[in-house]
Amino acid sequence: MDILKTIKEKLAGDSVTDASFEGANIVIYTDDENFFKNGESKIKEIVNELKKRIELRADRDVLHDKEKVEKEIKEIVPKEAEITKIIFDNHRSIVIIEAKKPGLVIGKKGSIIEEIRKKTMWTPQVQRSASIKSKITDNIREVLYANNTYRRRFLNKMGKKIYKEWSPEKVDEWVRLTMLGGGRQVGRSCLLLQTPESKILLDCGVDVASSGKDKFPYFNLPEFDISQLDAVIITHAHLDHVGLLPYLYKMGYDGPVYMTPPTRDIAALLSLDFIGVAYKQATKPLFSSTDVKEMVKHSICLDYNEVTDVTPDIRITFYNSGHCLGASIVHINIGNGLHNLVYTGDYKYGKSRLLEQAVGNYPRVETVVTEATYGSKKDVLPAKSKSEQDLIDIVNKTIKRKGKVLIPELGLGRAQETMLILEDAMKKGKLPDVPIYIDGMIWDINA
Amino acid sequence: MDILKTIKEKLAGDSVTDASFEGANIVIYTDDENFFKNGESKIKEIVNELKKRIELRADRDVLHDKEKVEKEIKEIVPKEAEITKIIFDNHRSIVIIEAKKPGLVIGKKGSIIEEIRKKTMWTPQVQRSASIKSKITDNIREVLYANNTYRRRFLNKMGKKIYKEWSPEKVDEWVRLTMLGGGRQVGRSCLLLQTPESKILLDCGVDVASSGKDKFPYFNLPEFDISQLDAVIITHAHLDHVGLLPYLYKMGYDGPVYMTPPTRDIAALLSLDFIGVAYKQATKPLFSSTDVKEMVKHSICLDYNEVTDVTPDIRITFYNSGHCLGASIVHINIGNGLHNLVYTGDYKYGKSRLLEQAVGNYPRVETVVTEATYGSKKDVLPAKSKSEQDLIDIVNKTIKRKGKVLIPELGLGRAQETMLILEDAMKKGKLPDVPIYIDGMIWDINA
Repeated sequence: MDILKTIKEKLAGDSVTDASFEGANIVIYTDDENFFKNGESKIKEIVNELKKRIELRADRDVLHDKEKVEKEIKEIVPKEAEITKIIFDNHRSIVIIEAKKPGLVIGKKGSIIEEIRKKTMWTPQVQRSASIKSKITDNIREVLYANNTYRRRFLNKMGKKIYKEWSPEKVDEWVRLTMLGGGRQVGRSCLLLQTPESKILLDCGVDVASSGKDKFPYFNLPEFDISQLDAVIITHAHLDHVGLLPYLYKMGYDGPVYMTPPTRDIAALLSLDFIGVAYKQATKPLFSSTDVKEMVKHSICLDYNEVTDVTPDIRITFYNSGHCLGASIVHINIGNGLHNLVYTGDYKYGKSRLLEQAVGNYPRVETVVTEATYGSKKDVLPAKSKSEQDLIDIVNKTIKRKGKVLIPELGLGRAQETMLILEDAMKKGKLPDVPIYIDGMIWDINA
Repeated sequence: MDILKTIKEKLAGDSVTDASFEGANIVIYTDDENFFKNGESKIKEIVNELKKRIELRADRDVLHDKEKVEKEIKEIVPKEAEITKIIFDNHRSIVIIEAKKPGLVIGKKGSIIEEIRKKTMWTPQVQRSASIKSKITDNIREVLYANNTYRRRFLNKMGKKIYKEWSPEKVDEWVRLTMLGGGRQVGRSCLLLQTPESKILLDCGVDVASSGKDKFPYFNLPEFDISQLDAVIITHAHLDHVGLLPYLYKMGYDGPVYMTPPTRDIAALLSLDFIGVAYKQATKPLFSSTDVKEMVKHSICLDYNEVTDVTPDIRITFYNSGHCLGASIVHINIGNGLHNLVYTGDYKYGKSRLLEQAVGNYPRVETVVTEATYGSKKDVLPAKSKSEQDLIDIVNKTIKRKGKVLIPELGLGRAQETMLILEDAMKKGKLPDVPIYIDGMIWDINA
């Protein structure tokens, strides 16, 4: 089934100038101003029929002049939104608006971006400006903008691959799952999921505590062939789940990696830090910043609950896992409902100060692969309230003795949680108002 | 560790002329008559130390004359034992005594065979004569006797392989298990068990109900390489567990297959029948009787509860599974206690008229792979007593109407069970005394 042809035929009378893929999404370009502005209901009909995401954009021939558009945007968007940057993506007819208060750019029910769209013919995308200036997140966005043409071709190629053998029918096939790492250990989480149509890695972690070949997942298994790999799915940005992904690109992988936007940013950040740590320890890093860039260049970011085809017979959805910023449980629909697999990655079933608890309801699941860290009979942790009180007691005791409290925070996300506990204790008078100084990677991660 | 050298050194003063392997068993030959007759306690010491089976036999130079020995055996063994055959295995210093009542050849606590051993210098082995004459079981034994020299070399080679890397220490390694067939289906049961030292197949079944490539387990998986295979373990003789084993030998496998003695005999029988059925259906059989012979030639038979090394890091024990004659649950000790896997094959946890119930207690188990046929929520079978009464009612009703009851028995072992139910019903007067005629493979299987 040629899905682009099918769509073009359905829109035969509507001046469609081009149709292409952005990953599993389908983009239709039109030079008919009226259809661009009012074609929404017709597109929705096709979306309902094919159950695929389709976006209508204006052909570049009818896009308004950039300088004029920039002025218009600044007029339409209220000053309080604090726009920091406007970037035009010519090849995709998209204008990216970075603002400190993105909600004000979007407007009620999207009214403001809709106005921008209709007035300028450009398709606006809104991003939150970094609240703290971070060179690394700037650089990550830079990589994406700089490789726009490559990205467009790459995403179109991915779409072609996904839809080549695509069929809406339920298929009869086998499913294989192989643990390449992370079985009975913490570190180097990596699973190979195979069907007759697909070879997909779930996570690609490093075991930082090990040395030599034990750092790596079992990439030497006979059924793993990097040149046959269709996609990588990353559940969250900790190194034991993503640390060897740049290494995959170094070894020649040039396919997509699916993750949430925060996972992409933090993974890049931690990977660069991983290189830095290697240099500090006078060892050779496993990969270079070029490989980290390749990872970013090939990333396809998905929000929670966004259903996406990644191969002809595999469709994935990320759900919040409550483990750290951007961390996901991934639901994998194989063969149009033949088998549904949930791979949890790391998760937390309690609400923390920072994050919602993990999603526990899925439409259909036949197999669950779960992490089991702290999952044994004896792993009963003290109540959160007690742990927090213990922390506050120690800080109080130290302050009374006129001491200083140094808190080395090891895990990503823990520093933020600790900050919130201390702030809350001060607000409630459980701690005296003393200055708190923070330093390290937390700056970039909070950015 | 060279285990034969170690043993020879421990027996330095005791005229050991040769030491060799028979699979995982170690055989010591001596030309010292006194040591042969009284060395038992010394051998036991070494067995306790090395935890390996060691057998002491006489060197062929000191064996008594065969004709004389045959006469002596017939004098020592009581007439009521009904000896049917005496076979000498020169290369192994063994005399095989087939008798209708093997217990009488063995004697109380083995007193009679011990007497034979000491008087003749030959090591006696006792076998039950077939109660019904079966050409096929005769042929199977023939294959083994005819290939004595090959068998001896083969078993010695196996032992060398097992003990080459053998070490009594617990090892740290990985274990992999791959379903090559039998997952979510009945038929072609086949699992590949791998460690750094071993590649072992658990069962090798055919899916008789399928056609084409679906008959076969997934032998085309990249991690399966027939030339790397160390051993095959067969849990029972039904075709869905053993039907493609002769095909493996046809494809060039020349390693050992471990099973119980009844499994070997019935597997050979059913395999030959499988060829016959193919011819009757005018299709080409998947293998020939030559391949079945190869299977028998490479069989290493183990009794229930007999612990045996099959590779340097894998030790197996068969336990009764209650499913059919010779059927086993196999306990697999990997890496000297690193991991213990129980693969159930097919089993029955109730006593039947014919068989004891499956063994359910194992010294140590970390992983169980179980069959799940009739294992779902809805699979609640009627009570056995009700099923049996239903059968008797139908037979009674038919007899009263002067009809004839034809019972096509599909599964191996079912015919015997039915015979016992009917016999019991007649004895108890629940059925009139009517003649029962049986025909088909049951003759050979009962033999």
